[in-house]
Amino acid sequence: MLIVPEREIGALMTRASAFEAVEKVFAAMASGEAYNFPVIREAIGHEDALYGFKGGFDRAGLTLGLKAGGYWPNNLEKFRVINHQSTVFLFDPDTGKVAAMVGGNLLTALRTAAASSVSIAHLARRDAKVMGMVGAGHQATFQLRAALEQRPFEKVIGWNLHPEMLPNIETVADEAGLPFEAVALEGMREADVIVSITSSFAPSLMAAHVSPGTHLACMGTDTRGKQEVEAALLAVATVFTDEVAQSVSIGEAQHAVAEGLISESDVHQIGAVINGSHPGRRSDEEITLFDGTGVGLQDLAVAAAVVDLAVEKGIAIEVDV
Amino acid sequence: MLIVPEREIGALMTRASAFEAVEKVFAAMASGEAYNFPVIREAIGHEDALYGFKGGFDRAGLTLGLKAGGYWPNNLEKFRVINHQSTVFLFDPDTGKVAAMVGGNLLTALRTAAASSVSIAHLARRDAKVMGMVGAGHQATFQLRAALEQRPFEKVIGWNLHPEMLPNIETVADEAGLPFEAVALEGMREADVIVSITSSFAPSLMAAHVSPGTHLACMGTDTRGKQEVEAALLAVATVFTDEVAQSVSIGEAQHAVAEGLISESDVHQIGAVINGSHPGRRSDEEITLFDGTGVGLQDLAVAAAVVDLAVEKGIAIEVDV
Repeated sequence: MLIVPEREIGALMTRASAFEAVEKVFAAMASGEAYNFPVIREAIGHEDALYGFKGGFDRAGLTLGLKAGGYWPNNLEKFRVINHQSTVFLFDPDTGKVAAMVGGNLLTALRTAAASSVSIAHLARRDAKVMGMVGAGHQATFQLRAALEQRPFEKVIGWNLHPEMLPNIETVADEAGLPFEAVALEGMREADVIVSITSSFAPSLMAAHVSPGTHLACMGTDTRGKQEVEAALLAVATVFTDEVAQSVSIGEAQHAVAEGLISESDVHQIGAVINGSHPGRRSDEEITLFDGTGVGLQDLAVAAAVVDLAVEKGIAIEVDV
Repeated sequence: MLIVPEREIGALMTRASAFEAVEKVFAAMASGEAYNFPVIREAIGHEDALYGFKGGFDRAGLTLGLKAGGYWPNNLEKFRVINHQSTVFLFDPDTGKVAAMVGGNLLTALRTAAASSVSIAHLARRDAKVMGMVGAGHQATFQLRAALEQRPFEKVIGWNLHPEMLPNIETVADEAGLPFEAVALEGMREADVIVSITSSFAPSLMAAHVSPGTHLACMGTDTRGKQEVEAALLAVATVFTDEVAQSVSIGEAQHAVAEGLISESDVHQIGAVINGSHPGRRSDEEITLFDGTGVGLQDLAVAAAVVDLAVEKGIAIEVDV
């Protein structure tokens, strides 16, 4: 088997190859060639940790396996290691033998950023100029960096509950040579594309804060009860997602569905747009909304890509098991 | 992290240490210190494979992780590798970091054998003399070898649907210096302990084939629909299991419960006997029946034990991930 340690991922994995891997597996999900297994997520009653497995199989890419790991809230303080810890295990779908093990921490950040940037590539207006960020934590920097590659943006605007964190994303705008402006939520009306990446249990972004023609990627809601945007926004938008079942149960769409504003059939797979079986954006006035819930197949796809890159560069550690 | 390849397990793992690990984790399950996660089991639609994850956490032993793998029915014919393929991954419960990877094929056979032998140790009559085997496949040899260490048996009797396989278990009896006799199912009345290890969807062993005072370990039923023994047998026996929820849904007890012959509360955790919170066998006339369904915690327990042994002997492969 091959091992790609966490420390190697940064130098190996590019945003472009994360984009390509995630786009391809979203398409395979929509065509029925790839599916995710039920997710296991357990509060294990030790160190307040949440631990679990996200698995899946992509028959098109022949990628089988799981991401295992979770959230250890005391890690940073106690051990000076990051709180999110995960590892991806790939199996040979022809024999069931373990094929590869890949550090999953940075990959998770990259695949989450790739998901919103895939949605921008396929759903944002071609002439989008203003990029809006709701949220300015560590993951927001990944989302913004990937987003800025999808359209010729001229400006970045940002809002965060704690404004002192805004320099995180201002730095990314700087790197891209773009002006940055801190705005109130009302100021998001200027944005052509908005990525929200917060961990909130009450909506920040309201329907009135979003202009016609905007593409919005909601990337923060992955649990029952979390919410980033007003449910009414989903009623006026065309809603897309990675996985419909997750979107309506633990994703951003859970609230609009629970309130009867939309139904499950109003939520479309982004993969259908990639495949061409859904037309995607229909007009310059339409609001499109991508509910990124995060699926195991994304992890497997980027891990498989990184294994290929590691083999190419002679970095993969081979262990005879 | 540490890696213990499949090829090393045979020389490292002893039946005694598998017994000890499984006995301990059954006790931890009964005391509430250890629990299994929901099982993921998927027919992936490729190579007719069944693939999945069995995870759990043992707070007493601080063992966290999963066994991943499954059944690839074409392996032997196509690739000359065994059809059951699995790997155990252990995580550090303090940080969520991956701690060890252990080949799971031989371990699965050993932990399954350890489960029935733990049940014999705690439930069979002290004066048991005749050991009966229902089933004579590859796994039956593991079950018999482990069973024979639990009581001073004087004879082995065996039945198999295909009698030409009986030499498999006859060889094990020979190794132990015990006479072996092939019998009809009626002949099982002579047995003091019976282990059934078949993969059947209709009962072989009937209530009339089992004498008072017998201890019976049913080890073959792990799926809805499978059945090794007549449901009426569970009504006259005191029923024990590794995990009650599995026993009544996918284990041997599923049929007796479905037919209303027993209820869930009639199925007791073997760990409670080990802990002393259930008295176990109450008389020399009682029939005790252990429904061994197989849980992830057994795999984690034997894998953790093998990692310790590998470290002790300097065999574990260390990889900096």
